[in-house]
Amino acid sequence: MKPMRVGLLGIGTVGGGTYAVLKRNADEIARRAGRPIEITVVADKNLELARRVTGGACRLTDDAFAVVADPEVDIIIELIGGYGVARELVLKAIEHGKHVVTANKALLAKYGNEIFAAAREKDVIVAFEAAVAGGIPIIKALREGLTANRIEWIAGIINGTTNFILTEMREKGLPFAEVLKEAQRLGYAEADPTFDVEGIDAGHKISLMSAIAFGNNVNFDKAYIEGISKLEAVDIKYAEQLGYRIKLLGITKRMPEGVELRVHPTLVPAKRLIANVEGAMNAVLVKGDAVGATLYYGKGAGAEPTASAVIADLVDVTRMHATESEHRVPYLAFQPDAVIDLPILPQADIITSYYLRLRVADQPGVLADITRILADQEISIDAMFQREPDEGEDQADIIMLTHETREKNVDAAIARIGTLPTVLGEIIRLRLESLM
Amino acid sequence: MKPMRVGLLGIGTVGGGTYAVLKRNADEIARRAGRPIEITVVADKNLELARRVTGGACRLTDDAFAVVADPEVDIIIELIGGYGVARELVLKAIEHGKHVVTANKALLAKYGNEIFAAAREKDVIVAFEAAVAGGIPIIKALREGLTANRIEWIAGIINGTTNFILTEMREKGLPFAEVLKEAQRLGYAEADPTFDVEGIDAGHKISLMSAIAFGNNVNFDKAYIEGISKLEAVDIKYAEQLGYRIKLLGITKRMPEGVELRVHPTLVPAKRLIANVEGAMNAVLVKGDAVGATLYYGKGAGAEPTASAVIADLVDVTRMHATESEHRVPYLAFQPDAVIDLPILPQADIITSYYLRLRVADQPGVLADITRILADQEISIDAMFQREPDEGEDQADIIMLTHETREKNVDAAIARIGTLPTVLGEIIRLRLESLM
Repeated sequence: MKPMRVGLLGIGTVGGGTYAVLKRNADEIARRAGRPIEITVVADKNLELARRVTGGACRLTDDAFAVVADPEVDIIIELIGGYGVARELVLKAIEHGKHVVTANKALLAKYGNEIFAAAREKDVIVAFEAAVAGGIPIIKALREGLTANRIEWIAGIINGTTNFILTEMREKGLPFAEVLKEAQRLGYAEADPTFDVEGIDAGHKISLMSAIAFGNNVNFDKAYIEGISKLEAVDIKYAEQLGYRIKLLGITKRMPEGVELRVHPTLVPAKRLIANVEGAMNAVLVKGDAVGATLYYGKGAGAEPTASAVIADLVDVTRMHATESEHRVPYLAFQPDAVIDLPILPQADIITSYYLRLRVADQPGVLADITRILADQEISIDAMFQREPDEGEDQADIIMLTHETREKNVDAAIARIGTLPTVLGEIIRLRLESLM
Repeated sequence: MKPMRVGLLGIGTVGGGTYAVLKRNADEIARRAGRPIEITVVADKNLELARRVTGGACRLTDDAFAVVADPEVDIIIELIGGYGVARELVLKAIEHGKHVVTANKALLAKYGNEIFAAAREKDVIVAFEAAVAGGIPIIKALREGLTANRIEWIAGIINGTTNFILTEMREKGLPFAEVLKEAQRLGYAEADPTFDVEGIDAGHKISLMSAIAFGNNVNFDKAYIEGISKLEAVDIKYAEQLGYRIKLLGITKRMPEGVELRVHPTLVPAKRLIANVEGAMNAVLVKGDAVGATLYYGKGAGAEPTASAVIADLVDVTRMHATESEHRVPYLAFQPDAVIDLPILPQADIITSYYLRLRVADQPGVLADITRILADQEISIDAMFQREPDEGEDQADIIMLTHETREKNVDAAIARIGTLPTVLGEIIRLRLESLM
């Protein structure tokens, strides 16, 4: 059978991995897909690199716009990244009736609604398994494997860099800045780590999963995002003493009034499987009303794990490209005319449990003042302990875990507690999820 | 749009769950599938039960053969179980051009090749996500999510009953027979627990996954199957002291000479995520050459988790029923004419590591005799320790872990060691997988 002809835009890490895996496993992939899948043209600004990776076995060009218009190409793989030229190329490819496979979470988180609408108009597939959690087939699980369910929530470790840093901080008791340097040295973090450590990358991914889970539009711009750069090693230690691990989770929940969509460091019971996902690994926990909790674990980044997801999409597109759209899995899991606009709740309205750490003067009555304020805000305490900080003197750390409460109540309580003369320094607030 | 009309055969636990979830989430499912999916007729010998579960909202009959021939039915759900009438019904349904969704692992493990050939002939879909690991979408992951990969091996906790028993045995230090009784009381084990505790159910499931992973025919009849009924609590304890947990794993590996296909109690490093899957939960670990190891975790049984998988298949069939077979995912992941007949290796030829426990007379020279025999069989020792057994006297337990070796060498060594006068009683042999 005639091979599917693929145009690859960008032959960096993932592009090179995709090229290598498609070549190495060509026979096995064709036995599954029913026909060969071949990269017939590669576009990259760095033609030298493209020549090295492909060994000159396919056409090379530095003009990606020529590739997306090329009548000899059936599918475009977009691995350029970013919002700029990648957006233009994807829209041009769609305009020319090409199917698109992309790993670009930033692009879809920001312009997904526009891109999916354009694709629908032209009746082409836009596949993006590689955009979330690398090689883990989580988009497929959400869009196809769990279709029976009303999805209740998703909580995912979906950024390997930050999970690596948090694992090292916990295991070695080191501060964030030091571990970040090590991660950069080892290649787990980029020279400018902002996208990863500030939670933006995780925000892109959870925004896409949230839309798919709830049949909602993509709402990255309304997500609450807090990274790990301000996380202190002492809180990891205290959390551990209370039986919790701290993970940077992307969380989305369906609530009666709307959808919670947030990324932040989160205390998770240490006995949960997801709390034991270490190093640069990813894992996504999905709660459905019928199936209960299911978890998906694997490598969330890297050349070949991401290539695995890109190629799975190529096989899907190869099977489905000649069908009508009614036979295809809808972009956001729900039929386009059944996607609705559920509101994303402001962070002040989310409901979760909290970890609070306060540095206080070691005086009688301090605790009474604090607990009175919490009670006024209808916040009830689940656990509490007090520790002398390392520097000693007449100060103590009070650590509290609250029961579930609305974030605005905690905001108000923290503001009031902060005015107490016996409370010294900043009040640390982290969120806690039991993930039951 | 016109609803898909489904005939449900068997309204027991899973049938009832499927009916309930389809009804409860009808709107959400239709928003995904593009049209409503309705159970229009239920066949069950117990009409009273059928009436109770459905509230009389659909046609009822005790004649399943009438349903599979009914021109008003598009899809058959087979939830009767077993090899007998279920096989006839499925083949009849196919003959009548119906698509089939089944949770029947026993049927497919034994007659899968025949059933898939018949379905291919009639160009109908046979979907069986619910046959393996309940609500976990592992068939989808293997058939569609990991298509880029040369699958190297699969290791799965795919029987909840035995995992519950092993968890209880470890946590409470109780013997198998006692925990089995508790499991029966709690409904985790059946009155006749043979299928579960002797590993047959796990054998059915790993046989299906093996075929899908390697593009092979279904070979349940050639699988090596060993259950947990002879497992002693003391070995769970010793394993734990060595840093391992014992799990009943279904394992399949691609080797140069063929395929390993086996079910047995297995020592697994305690730090592996899969070693921490407790109670009745299931988990499947898949190693692909591109993606590395991925893990899928969730409830492997129960009314609604299994219904979740049945309905996911219904949605897939609803999308694909009107397409030609080239657009569909092949039954065994590989195109029917690309499925090959890889040999299943005899158990004597598998390669793994071993745990050995020997009761010996506490005399000089015993260990020298044993290690000499192991050396003769080219078995090298990874770890060893000696323990006084509880009853004391002049006896000791020697526990050894070997490096990887071929099973026939271990068989030969055990036979020779058993003839030593200083070796008392049976030699216990368990297998160990590092799952890297």
